[in-house]
Amino acid sequence: MPLPLVIDHDCGTPAYRQIQNEIVRLIHSGVLAPGDRLPSTRILGPDLGVHRSTVVRAYEELQALGYVESGSGTHTRVRSRYSFPLGDASGSDSIGPAGVIAGAPAIDWEGLDPRLTSAKRQSGIDPKPSASSHLPHVEFDRLTADPSLAPDVLRRCLKAVLAQGRGAVLDYSHPGGSPPLRKLVAERMRRHGVDVAPANIVITAGAQHALDLLLRYLVRAGDRVVVEAPTYGLMHALLRLHKVRVVEIPVLSSGIDLGALESVLREAGAALPRLIYSMPGFQNPTGVTTDQIHRERLLALCEKHGVPLVEDGFQEEMKYEGLAVMPVKSMDAAGVVMYVGTFSKVVFPGLRVGWIAAPETAASHLVDILHASALSVNTLAQATALHFCRTGAFDKHLRRAHRVYRGRMRTLLRELHRQMPETVAWTRPRGGYTTWLTLADTGVSETELLSRLEAGGVRVSGGSRFFLAPPAKQHLRLSIACTNEEAIARGCQTLGEVLKKVGGGSH
Amino acid sequence: MPLPLVIDHDCGTPAYRQIQNEIVRLIHSGVLAPGDRLPSTRILGPDLGVHRSTVVRAYEELQALGYVESGSGTHTRVRSRYSFPLGDASGSDSIGPAGVIAGAPAIDWEGLDPRLTSAKRQSGIDPKPSASSHLPHVEFDRLTADPSLAPDVLRRCLKAVLAQGRGAVLDYSHPGGSPPLRKLVAERMRRHGVDVAPANIVITAGAQHALDLLLRYLVRAGDRVVVEAPTYGLMHALLRLHKVRVVEIPVLSSGIDLGALESVLREAGAALPRLIYSMPGFQNPTGVTTDQIHRERLLALCEKHGVPLVEDGFQEEMKYEGLAVMPVKSMDAAGVVMYVGTFSKVVFPGLRVGWIAAPETAASHLVDILHASALSVNTLAQATALHFCRTGAFDKHLRRAHRVYRGRMRTLLRELHRQMPETVAWTRPRGGYTTWLTLADTGVSETELLSRLEAGGVRVSGGSRFFLAPPAKQHLRLSIACTNEEAIARGCQTLGEVLKKVGGGSH
Repeated sequence: MPLPLVIDHDCGTPAYRQIQNEIVRLIHSGVLAPGDRLPSTRILGPDLGVHRSTVVRAYEELQALGYVESGSGTHTRVRSRYSFPLGDASGSDSIGPAGVIAGAPAIDWEGLDPRLTSAKRQSGIDPKPSASSHLPHVEFDRLTADPSLAPDVLRRCLKAVLAQGRGAVLDYSHPGGSPPLRKLVAERMRRHGVDVAPANIVITAGAQHALDLLLRYLVRAGDRVVVEAPTYGLMHALLRLHKVRVVEIPVLSSGIDLGALESVLREAGAALPRLIYSMPGFQNPTGVTTDQIHRERLLALCEKHGVPLVEDGFQEEMKYEGLAVMPVKSMDAAGVVMYVGTFSKVVFPGLRVGWIAAPETAASHLVDILHASALSVNTLAQATALHFCRTGAFDKHLRRAHRVYRGRMRTLLRELHRQMPETVAWTRPRGGYTTWLTLADTGVSETELLSRLEAGGVRVSGGSRFFLAPPAKQHLRLSIACTNEEAIARGCQTLGEVLKKVGGGSH
Repeated sequence: MPLPLVIDHDCGTPAYRQIQNEIVRLIHSGVLAPGDRLPSTRILGPDLGVHRSTVVRAYEELQALGYVESGSGTHTRVRSRYSFPLGDASGSDSIGPAGVIAGAPAIDWEGLDPRLTSAKRQSGIDPKPSASSHLPHVEFDRLTADPSLAPDVLRRCLKAVLAQGRGAVLDYSHPGGSPPLRKLVAERMRRHGVDVAPANIVITAGAQHALDLLLRYLVRAGDRVVVEAPTYGLMHALLRLHKVRVVEIPVLSSGIDLGALESVLREAGAALPRLIYSMPGFQNPTGVTTDQIHRERLLALCEKHGVPLVEDGFQEEMKYEGLAVMPVKSMDAAGVVMYVGTFSKVVFPGLRVGWIAAPETAASHLVDILHASALSVNTLAQATALHFCRTGAFDKHLRRAHRVYRGRMRTLLRELHRQMPETVAWTRPRGGYTTWLTLADTGVSETELLSRLEAGGVRVSGGSRFFLAPPAKQHLRLSIACTNEEAIARGCQTLGEVLKKVGGGSH
């Protein structure tokens, strides 16, 4: 029987291995069935343009792997592979050419994990195809630090790190993070008024990883968790993964509604939420920053009820207007606050380095969880972040980023003022990347609205993805992370035109 | 009242910020109580050797943060911070100098996570202090690729990656992994007889992360999971994290005891294990590799009962003696095998890049879990692994590593033969890094034995950490990952001497 084999001499895989792999494929696909005779090595060699010994080697490998057997004489035949019962050592029970046992229960991979079906494809970070406009799209939907602001800094840091630390950057790191980076992060936290030591710091592979570790530590399936509404969309996906019950508390212009939160805590009885997740600064998506009084009250509520506060300070370093407010964690004398920080939202999103600042006992448990689930965080990334901070490059970059983003945010707020119809309201952030628009009844669905904007060359994030329960009004999130001032002006103009066209009733 | 403040003009933190931070600390520590008057700016400035305006700025910041208030006249006083009831906007209820509400429930961080206490401090990767011997310790306990074998390859790869891919390596990656790396890993898997496409591949932050993702996907708390006994010690920690019930099946010299496994599956009824975790090649810790027949039977068992097999191929590339056996995954026509691979055990442990090869539907769910829990894997690390493979550097490195480790393993087996007392048995691996010693009754505890070896300059891994139930015999794992041939000979000699001294009864 001639075999449909072709040898590719340029592919880098040895010829005997190619023959072997092809025959395995023919067996798996059923072209060759148990008992079938393989061509003799004397014939197949010349057929394929290889030496006979090459074919002999392939057959030997196939025999060692149990695919073929040498019968009487010199014939090599396809072997029957083992099946049940296990006690049968003769191998005579064929399980069919494709190796599938008829009647065996198939594993339903789709059905295994119903919790995820509703979480699927919410990524929002996949690159989208660009429309057929001559101008590039205005990407008000991107929320990653603009890489064009620091084109060479990563390269320079890495070069320096590699020049210093030969072997060490190849090896595993301590599961809690590299000791000098923990020390440095503790020092940076002290600049923000947070009095922590290296033992309070757990280095993570970014803020999302930090939130996941905290949930693994703090919650069980079925527990209640308080989040802001709206909040960071991927937090919803993460909470679904942990199968918790989510309590949404509205975000007002002053921050999370403390009255509503207090009611929930007071009426919870034994079913107290296991944690409260809050972004006091430049909240995603609203851009709202809470003031000192609000922070004190939030902390006092958490202390009174003994509920941990997970404070997401993902944009702590992006305060570029007015006086800085300190993190809630800076007042955490009772040890109820778990603070999450990250380098990703200012620079290096792909490097995946963030941290948790937590009471020491909690930090030690979090390190154990990180160790059991991931061994350690990428050593090179940690070394790079360390170098970036130590050399002053981070602070220098921040000064530049503040200047650039201050300019962009001012432009955005000015252009919104110019271009929006009267029925639209928006927040006025004093840092960070996002503002939040509240629309009057537009008369069209969010999907329709987004697609009209996209057709006009503007991408924004629809508000509904930041809520679990459908919101009462339509919202849009605009991010200036990757849009320059020219694009912001152009985007606002289009946005205004589209909203004026669709917009109907009063606000 | 004079304040115990000192300004450090060389620390890089502005003086006003230092003053501010120090006063916050004094308030938190109770040295300054609500109502206390701060020194006037006219006095404190000269006291500290700074301009008065510097102190004014510090006080302004403190006021904005709510720490102090300006009373009548020019006095600045420590303010009472908010407390309950929330409705009280006057701020008159002090919560005490340290901000702790008396009688509020403290959060018991230690008690929160009892499952972890027994898993703590099993790291085994912390550097240990070296003993006072003049020769370096023989590190039979290290199981990471020897960094001295590839001192410059990481640097070279990174350099090339940075030269090519400016912005992209700074950004997030696709949550399933960078498309070219998924493609390349699929191609590499095909070399091992595994017919998969890029959509079957999920790039992870190392093998441990891959195992964690698989457990998140496949198991719930309370489920049963089958593992080999002995097995990889950190798998125990991971399983504890997932709160599953572990069924240990002994590893025989031929591999996992299939008879025992079949009994467990047959008698499980509705409580079927949710997965079977197995390392068919160079099992950690035993070094046992199963043959083709064993693999067929294991697969057939999984197919018959519909139980997923998690195949850990962490040393797939480290076959350096005899003919290669293909992974179980290569026969997985029914789609029951989830294969875990990694670059860490051959090179680059700190880079944290591994993968899962899974049926496409399962892969898609795993990507969702990865996205929700970590966004994406470090982009730069992925690009580096990709470059390493594409340029042929990986294959070149493997040839070298095979030569080196073949030499080391042969030396180890020869020296064990020479030096061990007759009562000791060991496995004879044909690849990988580890062999497994079974000792006769030594008459001393494992801890005592390890400390005698350490005193003699030899570090080995005690066998008990690879079991959940205490094993019937004493075992040691020896790894040649980071020991050269000279050290191996020296280590075996010491090992032989110590074992002869303690060893008593027959094997």
